[in-house]
Amino acid sequence: MAIDMIKFTRGVPPPISFPTERLISITTDLLKNESSTLLQYGNSYGYFPLREMIASQFQVDVDRVVLGQGSLQLLDHLLRIEKEKLPSICIEEPTYDRTITIFNRAKAKLTGIPITSDGFDGSYFEKMLAGRKEIDYLYIIPDFQNPSGTIMDLDTRKRIIELAKQHNYLIIEDSPYRRLRYEGEDIPSCFEISPDNVIHMSSFSKLVCPGLRVGFMILPANLAKQVAKIAEDTYINPSFLNQALVFRFSSGGFLDEHLIILKNLYNTRRQAMFQALDDRMADLGEWTKPKGGFFVGLTLSRKVEISSLMKAASSKGLQLTDGRGFFIHGGETFIRLPFCALTPAQIQQGISRLQSTILSLEKT
Amino acid sequence: MAIDMIKFTRGVPPPISFPTERLISITTDLLKNESSTLLQYGNSYGYFPLREMIASQFQVDVDRVVLGQGSLQLLDHLLRIEKEKLPSICIEEPTYDRTITIFNRAKAKLTGIPITSDGFDGSYFEKMLAGRKEIDYLYIIPDFQNPSGTIMDLDTRKRIIELAKQHNYLIIEDSPYRRLRYEGEDIPSCFEISPDNVIHMSSFSKLVCPGLRVGFMILPANLAKQVAKIAEDTYINPSFLNQALVFRFSSGGFLDEHLIILKNLYNTRRQAMFQALDDRMADLGEWTKPKGGFFVGLTLSRKVEISSLMKAASSKGLQLTDGRGFFIHGGETFIRLPFCALTPAQIQQGISRLQSTILSLEKT
Repeated sequence: MAIDMIKFTRGVPPPISFPTERLISITTDLLKNESSTLLQYGNSYGYFPLREMIASQFQVDVDRVVLGQGSLQLLDHLLRIEKEKLPSICIEEPTYDRTITIFNRAKAKLTGIPITSDGFDGSYFEKMLAGRKEIDYLYIIPDFQNPSGTIMDLDTRKRIIELAKQHNYLIIEDSPYRRLRYEGEDIPSCFEISPDNVIHMSSFSKLVCPGLRVGFMILPANLAKQVAKIAEDTYINPSFLNQALVFRFSSGGFLDEHLIILKNLYNTRRQAMFQALDDRMADLGEWTKPKGGFFVGLTLSRKVEISSLMKAASSKGLQLTDGRGFFIHGGETFIRLPFCALTPAQIQQGISRLQSTILSLEKT
Repeated sequence: MAIDMIKFTRGVPPPISFPTERLISITTDLLKNESSTLLQYGNSYGYFPLREMIASQFQVDVDRVVLGQGSLQLLDHLLRIEKEKLPSICIEEPTYDRTITIFNRAKAKLTGIPITSDGFDGSYFEKMLAGRKEIDYLYIIPDFQNPSGTIMDLDTRKRIIELAKQHNYLIIEDSPYRRLRYEGEDIPSCFEISPDNVIHMSSFSKLVCPGLRVGFMILPANLAKQVAKIAEDTYINPSFLNQALVFRFSSGGFLDEHLIILKNLYNTRRQAMFQALDDRMADLGEWTKPKGGFFVGLTLSRKVEISSLMKAASSKGLQLTDGRGFFIHGGETFIRLPFCALTPAQIQQGISRLQSTILSLEKT
């Protein structure tokens, strides 16, 4: 008998979290009142009211805000700006695999800075920076990092900003999970601390739903202009209907209400993940205890052959992502555990299957 | 007193052509029934039912069909596929300015093939091809060309396909206007004549509305896979909600009805453009008589300084596009006249302003 596959793979939200009814009423109203704008070509920076709303929230001029079909696309555009030399970029290691792909496609020179269980290793970064030539960007996910679930502490945030001023690099702060905190208090974002040294990017994929494909980037106005030009030259403009939906959902106060529902739902699942790991994995690895976001980062205590692990897991009804995708080098013992899209029962079952897979491999 | 600006600039449809009421009812139904798919992440090839519909219309396997945020974006992706050498591409001259930008950004070596009032100059192309090394792509807009309004005749279509087989290049056939024919009978598309030598691209921007940003490309399966990979690595997937709207609008029979309305509306405007040109421009230039699409291509009989012309026109309440944007070299006497988004009265007024602008420049 076929067993239901449990997926510890991508960071997707569960369909039950989508605010479908509200989106239906908003769409109807939008198309009735704004169809001549929303169904027409538009400006490549994106739908103006949503840009204005974000500019107001982040207290910046609106010409610093660009909207895209997700924020990853805008990162791609940023890297496509013509430069005399190939970019040199520091990334956290592990980091979001799709970003590594974007940077590799731009032929960037990448240097990894270790993520420990306390987050970004600031002193490693500082030593690295002292011993070499300048970098263009430092890419970080300071809040509930993908894939590790860690947080960058306030002192480190302040320190990398000081270093940015000295060494003249821009921090790219990717913050899609920042508003999904399940315990503790917000730490100021790097952008809040120093908006001129930081490119802040985020999206509504984890807050409203991914399918609308709406993300944004706040960057120096001259770079924003170049990113918007690349957008125009590639697809004229992103869909305003989708961006208007997000705008109305946010500005109408529905997003704030919705975040309360999401946090309750995801926190229950996070607790279930912690419990399952405590019950099953204590002898087999160490894991982070994220205070928000989508992921627990698990590091196995012994090296396993990752493709054998994935294959064996699959035969037990468990799909895993290859941990090496999150690293420049290494990652053989790393497993990303997304918990938001699974029920507590599925999480328990999934971790149980992971345990038995590892134990079965150790026997052979 | 300020006069209303008349714009002979971009090829945009008029908002009155948008099927707003129908889109409202379709969206409501879609979100009620498919939100778990449409609001979620999806496959980077695009929304499957729309891909299937297009595959069936074009009688190809579905794995040859990729959907994008407009078709231009897919052309960008095609050019981003890693190759050992920079691409060599023949284009019509004049051609769509945004395509020239895409090709230049890919550092393609471009060769222009003249468009005459009878369309693509096949014998020029054949001679050019005989005397030089191979090309990778021939990019054409055979039906109601942008910006000239011309048609490529059937013999030329057959000939460039024969040459494609001999010289091993792919034809990129861009056909956003093909279904907007106001007189005469369809000529088989290059894709219909020989689907293995042709990449066919089109969009729903001119048939439903631009704002949904839905276009498609049909290409050899191995290239489709690479284009979809670039899409995935850039924005994961295009918005399925928008693509599902187009699918339901088309598969429900509403598109066929809508095309009848559009053709009536646009044909009236085309006739008004012809009349205005006959009345005002007979001594000043020559123009094409397009049987479909969005544009009349006007060539002035004397060279004018294009930036002076644009400036003088603007002061008379007429906005023009710089004709040089449609050419690799030259284009100083070329004016693209889009007629679909203007009323007959605006068209008449616009051509009257163009006439008086040119006459005033000749006097100085």
